[in-house]
Amino acid sequence: MIRKYTFGTPLPTDAVVLSLPAETGPVPFFTLSRDGDRVVLTRPLQPEDCLFGLGESVRGINKRGFLYRSWNNDIFNHTESTDSLYSSHTFLIFFGPDTLFGVFLDDPGTVTWDLGYTRSDTAVITSENGQLDLYILEEDSLTELARSFRRLTGRSYLPPRWAFGYIQSRWGYASEAEVRTVAAEHRKRGIPLDAVCLDIDYMEDFKNFTWRKDAFPDLTRFSADMKQDHIRLVPIIDAGIKREKGYAPYDSGKAGGYFCKKEDGSDFSAAVWPGDCCFPDFFREDARRWFGDLYQPLLASGVEGFWNDMNEPSLFYTEDCVAAAFRRVEELRSGNVDYEAMWGLKDVFNGIANNPEDYRSFYHEVNGTPVRHDRVHNLYGAFMTRATADAFRRFDPDRRFLLFSRASFIGAHRNGGIWQGDNFSWWSHLKMALQMLPNLNLCGFLYSGCDLGGFGCNVTEDLLARFLQLGVFTPLMRNHSALHTREQEIYRFSTWESMRDTLRVRYALLPFLYSEFMKAALSGGMYFRPLAFDYPSDPRAVRTEDQIMLGEGCMIAPVLEQNAVGRYVYLPEDMLMVRFRSPEDYDLVPLPKGDHRIDCSLREFPLFLKKGHPLLLCPGGESTETLDDHTFTALCLTDRAVTYDLYRDNGFDPDPVLAEHLTPVSVPAPAAGTSPVPGVAISALVL
Amino acid sequence: MIRKYTFGTPLPTDAVVLSLPAETGPVPFFTLSRDGDRVVLTRPLQPEDCLFGLGESVRGINKRGFLYRSWNNDIFNHTESTDSLYSSHTFLIFFGPDTLFGVFLDDPGTVTWDLGYTRSDTAVITSENGQLDLYILEEDSLTELARSFRRLTGRSYLPPRWAFGYIQSRWGYASEAEVRTVAAEHRKRGIPLDAVCLDIDYMEDFKNFTWRKDAFPDLTRFSADMKQDHIRLVPIIDAGIKREKGYAPYDSGKAGGYFCKKEDGSDFSAAVWPGDCCFPDFFREDARRWFGDLYQPLLASGVEGFWNDMNEPSLFYTEDCVAAAFRRVEELRSGNVDYEAMWGLKDVFNGIANNPEDYRSFYHEVNGTPVRHDRVHNLYGAFMTRATADAFRRFDPDRRFLLFSRASFIGAHRNGGIWQGDNFSWWSHLKMALQMLPNLNLCGFLYSGCDLGGFGCNVTEDLLARFLQLGVFTPLMRNHSALHTREQEIYRFSTWESMRDTLRVRYALLPFLYSEFMKAALSGGMYFRPLAFDYPSDPRAVRTEDQIMLGEGCMIAPVLEQNAVGRYVYLPEDMLMVRFRSPEDYDLVPLPKGDHRIDCSLREFPLFLKKGHPLLLCPGGESTETLDDHTFTALCLTDRAVTYDLYRDNGFDPDPVLAEHLTPVSVPAPAAGTSPVPGVAISALVL
Repeated sequence: MIRKYTFGTPLPTDAVVLSLPAETGPVPFFTLSRDGDRVVLTRPLQPEDCLFGLGESVRGINKRGFLYRSWNNDIFNHTESTDSLYSSHTFLIFFGPDTLFGVFLDDPGTVTWDLGYTRSDTAVITSENGQLDLYILEEDSLTELARSFRRLTGRSYLPPRWAFGYIQSRWGYASEAEVRTVAAEHRKRGIPLDAVCLDIDYMEDFKNFTWRKDAFPDLTRFSADMKQDHIRLVPIIDAGIKREKGYAPYDSGKAGGYFCKKEDGSDFSAAVWPGDCCFPDFFREDARRWFGDLYQPLLASGVEGFWNDMNEPSLFYTEDCVAAAFRRVEELRSGNVDYEAMWGLKDVFNGIANNPEDYRSFYHEVNGTPVRHDRVHNLYGAFMTRATADAFRRFDPDRRFLLFSRASFIGAHRNGGIWQGDNFSWWSHLKMALQMLPNLNLCGFLYSGCDLGGFGCNVTEDLLARFLQLGVFTPLMRNHSALHTREQEIYRFSTWESMRDTLRVRYALLPFLYSEFMKAALSGGMYFRPLAFDYPSDPRAVRTEDQIMLGEGCMIAPVLEQNAVGRYVYLPEDMLMVRFRSPEDYDLVPLPKGDHRIDCSLREFPLFLKKGHPLLLCPGGESTETLDDHTFTALCLTDRAVTYDLYRDNGFDPDPVLAEHLTPVSVPAPAAGTSPVPGVAISALVL
Repeated sequence: MIRKYTFGTPLPTDAVVLSLPAETGPVPFFTLSRDGDRVVLTRPLQPEDCLFGLGESVRGINKRGFLYRSWNNDIFNHTESTDSLYSSHTFLIFFGPDTLFGVFLDDPGTVTWDLGYTRSDTAVITSENGQLDLYILEEDSLTELARSFRRLTGRSYLPPRWAFGYIQSRWGYASEAEVRTVAAEHRKRGIPLDAVCLDIDYMEDFKNFTWRKDAFPDLTRFSADMKQDHIRLVPIIDAGIKREKGYAPYDSGKAGGYFCKKEDGSDFSAAVWPGDCCFPDFFREDARRWFGDLYQPLLASGVEGFWNDMNEPSLFYTEDCVAAAFRRVEELRSGNVDYEAMWGLKDVFNGIANNPEDYRSFYHEVNGTPVRHDRVHNLYGAFMTRATADAFRRFDPDRRFLLFSRASFIGAHRNGGIWQGDNFSWWSHLKMALQMLPNLNLCGFLYSGCDLGGFGCNVTEDLLARFLQLGVFTPLMRNHSALHTREQEIYRFSTWESMRDTLRVRYALLPFLYSEFMKAALSGGMYFRPLAFDYPSDPRAVRTEDQIMLGEGCMIAPVLEQNAVGRYVYLPEDMLMVRFRSPEDYDLVPLPKGDHRIDCSLREFPLFLKKGHPLLLCPGGESTETLDDHTFTALCLTDRAVTYDLYRDNGFDPDPVLAEHLTPVSVPAPAAGTSPVPGVAISALVL
């Protein structure tokens, strides 16, 4: 059951696809109050209550105990005390012995979530705008709540099948030659690879939809050559359009009046990579169409995927903000400087980027009416994604494109994936990435993954290996790093062969993982889930923070600690551990329900299978296009024959019907006395 | 066996107490090379090798896999990628199946430790100065290596017994009235308390050795009143002396010529809290004596303990550095500002504090010769501590004083304790604090502890509770928080009663913990140790990163995760778990060697006892002075009678002889069939 409550006159956010009448009675589960414009929802928490949701946010799977703030924020050095990340996903489930409901604030402005922070026994959710649709969802289980929310908000984005391949990326690939070398180093060593991302370096002066003709002389030819080798190029597009007369996207945007305006009606501008930029008003349909059309030349040159970046939007600085900082310096020069003044000055310079004042200084046009940006801030990235996705659907309605964004809001999950934002080469960020994944799935973002190895800071070899072992299972599997950090392509490390074998496991599992992903996406389910969803009455499972469910019958439990050669795992039921070293070299260890200490040297990582749920391994390959998805080894903990429905399609059908793409795969019962591992069926299959 | 190798002409550091002849042969274990002035030591690492040491540093107990840099650094927002903290402890043990030796670089300049970072199979240690005494230590065990290093560097500092009580602290206590209220709130609720720290707020304009007469009108009276209530005041002293004529410490320092000089012979100055400050040249004996004498008026008013801060030294800014930043702003105003320029400007302002250029711009006088500061940087805090401790010994040779410092170098462990530096209210800092403790002990710093609850950022209630549960076992047990953060006194939280009970456990254990501490300190042992020291041939124990040994027979394993109600524990042998809720309410659970999942709700925390090692609980009290240390309950996993040597003294004897203070305590065997927990002796004792 979904009930809707409307406060004030909410602006259209495109977050939901169901049109529901607003209820008139009191909001259930919460005490409602007003604080000026604010709408405040208060609810007592029982000691056992857990909270799931909020998608992209720091800390654990269970969100209880911290104060979060929905406000899309470009903050690559985030820590456990960062209240906002790049995306805002305002859906939260309350789950406890006597509690089960979800709350979604369809509100594109600031929302704060005091989830037992101020008082450990109380949750307080505050909408700053006070203009919103509030949805209360009630179902019989966590899983049904998630499905119900997907019914409300629509089907998750479907990437093309090649987007499940390994993607190599780095801010700093400065030429076609460099990218070709990176690709060749992978191919030469048998390291699977499906795509290379082009970061801002490919552009001319960082201008969207241009490319440096000196360094990338013939993009069509380059793209074609790479595709010959089954490698796709995935260029970046930023939100801002450089304010420069003669630069076609600026000229056409200016002519159309498509940019965000200041209060006086002039175009708002702020500096980002290219310098002074204007910002497309993605809230206007005509502006979205204009912006989407700009992708066409790159598509025409053979590109089939993009990543949309800087779309919180990130603002490096505005003229006003810099002028104010410079004035402050001037004041200090002529007066007395004490430590407070100096610290204040440091704060002034650190506060120039993404300054709240700047976000209050420009406007969107919504249905002909100006709306101040900060009131709808969290939609900006989502609407950029919408512009791009709509354009792709216009250009080629018969194919799926790869698209993933940094900023997002609920609703954007229908149009693209997201990466988990710029992160650091930190063990704590590896753990945070794992913990974020089930909550992203709950909010609809199934195609996601973190910057493997970490974007900022210098990676260590063991951390990269462990990141990749998580990445084996994330739909988006991208190794990405920042300029001036240690080079992070796996072939640069002494243990590259084990890392390659980790990637080879990904490719051996790819048809299976793709099947699990598509089945989840097409049925409104979750690819990753908290353990609580499968074992709601097992308190240990409910509180497990470093293991997550994958697909119908799997669980992952990566090693998350430096220098560790093993970890503890809690099994909520009997499971089969598959401990991988390579697709050909793995251990099969049936384990009973309960606690286990498992060994995992740096080159080993486990996957756990529920009883009766087979895992399918194909022979692998160097790219998704060269995979054989007809020949499998099936592994299954079972005492009887089981059937698995394998999803397969052409890899680009934009609107597949689930039932039409399922192949029943029969796994026979283990032959008594013949299986090398008692109770485990190991079968060779040709479909 | 300790061997010494001398490179160049090292300056005296006061780190060692043994005078050894320098060897002439090659340095064992390492390949030695030169790179300009640098001395470079290279050693291959075997896969199983673990590295212990480096005292105050980030990351795990095993230091392998990262690049550390010894350079005392005021950096409260440190993360896992921070290479330098407040102290430099340049002792490292190499431990593996075929490896056991220690290396100590008695070098007060920058030392880098590439411990398997650049290449995972190689350690590279680099002295930038290239002028040092290098010590190679070889013994038969890790424990003997630690003892050998203590023989080389001298006995650890002994705090007075009251310093093992709970200390409440906050940057922001602005008046006597406020401190009295804080103390009263503790006493009123039965929360034990032995001391309150006074942060910089007590001083007049942050000037050392002054106090604000408006807010603290009569320090002698105030101190006496508090002591009546068994609470001591512990004021802060910073390194810098405000440059202000008429301010006595400045005038006397200036007259004596005791300040650090610039190249031209004028006094170097930089801004810290009070504004422009000069820095005592603690490298000169006469300056140390002058500075130490300045403590006397505060001591005369009844103060018995101090904390020395800002002694890396922290430099907020110098005139030169600010002028350069302002010039850079001027250049930008007149030219073109792009994102690189703006980011550069931000870096300029962020780089004003603790600027490397500033550390190269002043000099110490060492044996009459000027020595540039950066070459001996890591000694500054240690020599401030030395000045203070020497003065205390002069003023009252018959008593121990409390002294703990932020910055330190090896050698300072003889003169004072250290806190683990300004930290954050982060779960990751709780874990880091635990992991740092055994390495601090290895380097001689037994009296230590972290800012419980976290200094910066806003604490959450559960995090504070878990910090306190670690703090029960740390010799220095101080709750400390920063101005503008959430108030952190435990009575401010809804679950204060369980936190009080946690503190009551500390006081019930205090005679026992004090005994363990003193026995370790007086015998050259370690109060906290990595598990590897007790179980060197157990690979699981060797790699355990979230449990540490305490004293002769205990192990601690705090809960380190948000929302956790239990944790995994590895027992390297059969042990008795004592799970505390209060001194009167605990579970006794004998557990066999191996892996265990233990429940620990937010108010519970465990201690583990080896077989035959009793734990003594006294009735507790509200202060160390009112503790009854003659009446005990002894708990012991044993099948026979055991004896424990309880250390007791008057709490202030500066030079106790271990054997003279031991009382043998007999714990009878558990009476068959009568003990409520089979195999566990529970005895009431009166000594």
